Amino acid sequence: MPLKFRQATREDLPAIVRMLADDFLGATRERNENPLPESYVKAFGEIETDKNNELIVAEANGEIVGTLQITFTPSISFQGGKRATVESVRVDDKYRGQGIGKQLMQWAINRAREENCFAVQLTTNSERADAHRFYEELGFKGSHPGMKLYLK
Amino acid sequence: MPLKFRQATREDLPAIVRMLADDFLGATRERNENPLPESYVKAFGEIETDKNNELIVAEANGEIVGTLQITFTPSISFQGGKRATVESVRVDDKYRGQGIGKQLMQWAINRAREENCFAVQLTTNSERADAHRFYEELGFKGSHPGMKLYLK
Repeated sequence: MPLKFRQATREDLPAIVRMLADDFLGATRERNENPLPESYVKAFGEIETDKNNELIVAEANGEIVGTLQITFTPSISFQGGKRATVESVRVDDKYRGQGIGKQLMQWAINRAREENCFAVQLTTNSERADAHRFYEELGFKGSHPGMKLYLK
Repeated sequence: MPLKFRQATREDLPAIVRMLADDFLGATRERNENPLPESYVKAFGEIETDKNNELIVAEANGEIVGTLQITFTPSISFQGGKRATVESVRVDDKYRGQGIGKQLMQWAINRAREENCFAVQLTTNSERADAHRFYEELGFKGSHPGMKLYLK
């Protein structure tokens, strides 16, 4: 399926929140309501004005079929190397199994190369059984156990 | 030991690179030279001008004894929640075993609360055998396997 990748606009936000909520983990933590809770709109504004954050959508036939966020982080380590972090990767349930997630990630890896990043990194919730294999097939290695401390 | 935490200045950069290089992993990837390679200075400038990135040093008796970087990332997921990511945590070899790393991390956790983050996240190289327990003692849970794809 030919996909078009672009930065999300404010108008894409309902489709993005719908995909985030349509997920066994997201269902417990998102509020897919109409109108959207203001916190989503505020966060979109912060991402939109931050040159180191890009919220991306994949479009097919004019419809939003996937999303991810990519963050570029300058750092002193690795001789002042920049790293790319990918978060919130989702494919619309109706379009699963067609390689859209793989195309999304390949787009993100190319975007990281363009920005001269030394690595792309991500964490996946250990409850996402299939995700680990999906990322391994793209070349990722599980070399860095991820840890989280929830504050809320 | 009473510590003072503050944002790093350009003058702290040699001490920071020295700590990053004085490490079994860092030794293979940093260049602790005088003058410092330009890539470190460039990265410092990018961090300094990015409101979502803070390079922190811990000072004791006017000496730099530790460092970390904290990144704040706005996101759509978690109802537009902001997350904090901690990277490049180091304590000067001479000052190990005095609880400085713990104080550094507690400072970072408080900083994340100030910024209203819903979580603090980090990854540790699986070769850092003691790091996992250190972070668990601070309340972190290894709930999210981290994966990396090196591009260089």
